[in-house]
Amino acid sequence: MAKPPKSELPSHLPLGEKSEGRFYRKHILSVKQFTRSDVEYIFTIAEEMRTMVERVGTFDLLKGKVLANLFYEPSTRTASSFTAAMERLGGSVIPINEVRYSSVSKGESLPDTVRTLECYSDVIVLRHNETGAAATAAKYLRKPLINAGDGAGEHPTQALLDLFTIKEEIGTIDGLTITMLGDLKYGRTVHSLSRLLQMFNVKVRYVSPELLRVPEHLREELLAGNLPFSEHANLDEVLAESDVLYVTRVQKERFTDMAEYESVKDAYVITPETLTKAKEQMVLMHPLPRVGEISMDVDADPRAAYFRQMEYGMYVRMALLAMVLGKA
Amino acid sequence: MAKPPKSELPSHLPLGEKSEGRFYRKHILSVKQFTRSDVEYIFTIAEEMRTMVERVGTFDLLKGKVLANLFYEPSTRTASSFTAAMERLGGSVIPINEVRYSSVSKGESLPDTVRTLECYSDVIVLRHNETGAAATAAKYLRKPLINAGDGAGEHPTQALLDLFTIKEEIGTIDGLTITMLGDLKYGRTVHSLSRLLQMFNVKVRYVSPELLRVPEHLREELLAGNLPFSEHANLDEVLAESDVLYVTRVQKERFTDMAEYESVKDAYVITPETLTKAKEQMVLMHPLPRVGEISMDVDADPRAAYFRQMEYGMYVRMALLAMVLGKA
Amino acid sequence: MAKPPKSELPSHLPLGEKSEGRFYRKHILSVKQFTRSDVEYIFTIAEEMRTMVERVGTFDLLKGKVLANLFYEPSTRTASSFTAAMERLGGSVIPINEVRYSSVSKGESLPDTVRTLECYSDVIVLRHNETGAAATAAKYLRKPLINAGDGAGEHPTQALLDLFTIKEEIGTIDGLTITMLGDLKYGRTVHSLSRLLQMFNVKVRYVSPELLRVPEHLREELLAGNLPFSEHANLDEVLAESDVLYVTRVQKERFTDMAEYESVKDAYVITPETLTKAKEQMVLMHPLPRVGEISMDVDADPRAAYFRQMEYGMYVRMALLAMVLGKA
Repeated sequence: MAKPPKSELPSHLPLGEKSEGRFYRKHILSVKQFTRSDVEYIFTIAEEMRTMVERVGTFDLLKGKVLANLFYEPSTRTASSFTAAMERLGGSVIPINEVRYSSVSKGESLPDTVRTLECYSDVIVLRHNETGAAATAAKYLRKPLINAGDGAGEHPTQALLDLFTIKEEIGTIDGLTITMLGDLKYGRTVHSLSRLLQMFNVKVRYVSPELLRVPEHLREELLAGNLPFSEHANLDEVLAESDVLYVTRVQKERFTDMAEYESVKDAYVITPETLTKAKEQMVLMHPLPRVGEISMDVDADPRAAYFRQMEYGMYVRMALLAMVLGKA
Repeated sequence: MAKPPKSELPSHLPLGEKSEGRFYRKHILSVKQFTRSDVEYIFTIAEEMRTMVERVGTFDLLKGKVLANLFYEPSTRTASSFTAAMERLGGSVIPINEVRYSSVSKGESLPDTVRTLECYSDVIVLRHNETGAAATAAKYLRKPLINAGDGAGEHPTQALLDLFTIKEEIGTIDGLTITMLGDLKYGRTVHSLSRLLQMFNVKVRYVSPELLRVPEHLREELLAGNLPFSEHANLDEVLAESDVLYVTRVQKERFTDMAEYESVKDAYVITPETLTKAKEQMVLMHPLPRVGEISMDVDADPRAAYFRQMEYGMYVRMALLAMVLGKA
Repeated sequence: MAKPPKSELPSHLPLGEKSEGRFYRKHILSVKQFTRSDVEYIFTIAEEMRTMVERVGTFDLLKGKVLANLFYEPSTRTASSFTAAMERLGGSVIPINEVRYSSVSKGESLPDTVRTLECYSDVIVLRHNETGAAATAAKYLRKPLINAGDGAGEHPTQALLDLFTIKEEIGTIDGLTITMLGDLKYGRTVHSLSRLLQMFNVKVRYVSPELLRVPEHLREELLAGNLPFSEHANLDEVLAESDVLYVTRVQKERFTDMAEYESVKDAYVITPETLTKAKEQMVLMHPLPRVGEISMDVDADPRAAYFRQMEYGMYVRMALLAMVLGKA
């Protein structure tokens, strides 16, 4: 991915006192809102964040800003990632994990809750169990909201961090063959990442049991977007050519026929043996948590990128927080 | 409200290194502890907090101070407000929301818990489900405690923020006609606000169903305090003269006769239609959460002050934190 | 305890920019990992922390560092203590108390969870309900982990704070007679403190009901370590000679014979009457929470050190955090 010309680069972070920029005061609701140029811009900022964290740990770009981290359903990973992102930028966090127990919130509408939190904070991160909750909440807000996952809907920062991982691990996205494995039907991360990949010059290989193939609506979307892809039942057909292998979980509960589950499940578990057939520079990813889809014996392999993926996620979230607050 | 003479004003906040002042090391337990002069002093500080937040977001007045935010029962709104208040003053927060699950706390007395937290922190905010808990806890402490609501007892910061909202929205309190609507029998906020209003030159109109009129003990208190008030069943009798309309919820559960509930409930719901009969500068308030008492269609009306009310609450809590820590 | 020679002292804290020292990048898993010299070194740093907190409240030694405070089981006291310790050092905290509810964590292994948190943070504090969890987690980490209690296993920071309390209250540890009272069989704190005391020149008196005497394995350990100790059923036999009285709870549930419980329970409750027979400079300790073992009437006695003990705990945890991050 080419860097934008010098004049488009953001000012040096620690000096960035102006409040402006492409996403200033914007909500981050869906991957569908981004152009390729947007994504590249976000990654440029995320790379600066990585450099700064590696150099100094935290810095005061968002000193004076307060994040309301509002989680209607618990998600240790995502909540911690946003908390760390804000704290490493010198900002403060109001952690709100107890919504479901709160008598105050009982019966209170989501719009009222977020408008109250807007009075105390500068930006709201929302995790909710209902599809569309983030867009609904955003309609009522003057301050920016970042969608941290709303039910079966969107989880845009996850898709961005997945793509950023590829960019950081390989140095480019264009020209790659990216294989996604496992539950491609229900896997929200697979769908969102596929949408972002349409912006780039890549080939996609989908590998899944028949029952868990990519849904028809996504297939149509990809065809309309001219993303070259193919579908497979067997990883061996595409493993050798893959630059990225993105693994997701095949849940037993998805199957009505247990014989079918038993017959496929081992084909979708990554072991050291699997990796002997893969490229030496392949990047092995997983959105986590994993429950057996990747053997722990693989963790020491340099291609295992799933924990680095978590770290890249923090940089992407730092970038988005800085951007919506006009400090990038 | 006249500002105190110059010599009484607090020093400029960012320079305020001295630890002294009217509430230094004092507990904030009840509205009954305040004189009118106290309330005016708190509001002067709260106004300075508002100015500073609007100008710089956060500042380091309480840098080096730690707040233990101890909530025995969850209250997203109040806990978040105190957290934001402390963070915007540059202080740190120990969030304690899990008391009821903690095996450590099981069987531990409240005095022991707060004395432990006092070892780690500089000020304690306590929310408890039992009336009188704050006063009990305070007896054992060397460091200041702020009551954030104890059961059916007191919630002094709520009453102060209600009154501060009136002051900020209208510029004065003296001379106003203040109408309270809804459940005046059980509504803790109505009782506390009424007590504070006794210090000022105001008229109060109470509007409620017969069943939910102000309790006898409060009526006697108000008569003794010479607060001019009248009671009504119909909002129309007083709406046109009201400078402030403070709405509270009429809970179905309070009624034994459902026919009676059905006959009154709509009379206590504020709609755009209601507001056509109100003053153009009226201030519409609600302690939140609301569950239908004010139609969402009213939210865009400039008179709807209930979300600004939340923001004023943060400034009042910033003022109290700074004061009890001797930095105002 | 003699202070180490000047050349061994850590540099002055606010200037400490180097990242090195005895425990830099080390895990804190068990009291068994420490030598007497280690313990003395930790106490030297903890004393500096105490001085700094008393002087300035918080300071920026760990500015730029992030602590993941991971509690699988709730422990208000310990979690708050580590939070306060990190915040008073200018660092940030990711509070994680909801692990048991998190769908993300369901089925995720402890190694995966801690490796994820390691991506966001610089140091992990872990409280877990299973013995050995801390050592298991540490095996997978590149960044330091501090064990904050793992089931019936270790709780090394508790043992250190108990010993540090003795050091701070009396000025020395060598030469003292230390009496432990109550449940000596199951009491984890008693066992860990005993292990640390083996490094010093002290006499230990164990006072317990027959049923709750120190377990055989500990007795053998102490004999092998040449710690002079004796066992008693009656506090009166040793109270007058005790410099320290460390009280733990006798739980009713430990007894099968209720008559036996009834016959002993009052003998293990400390009252003002008990203290009339003790040294005027004795130090009365308890790990808290207490449930009746020490009468509240004793709290005002200057010998009652159990709340000061909590405060010393914060200093010890500040010292350990600074040390493992190379800033002490």
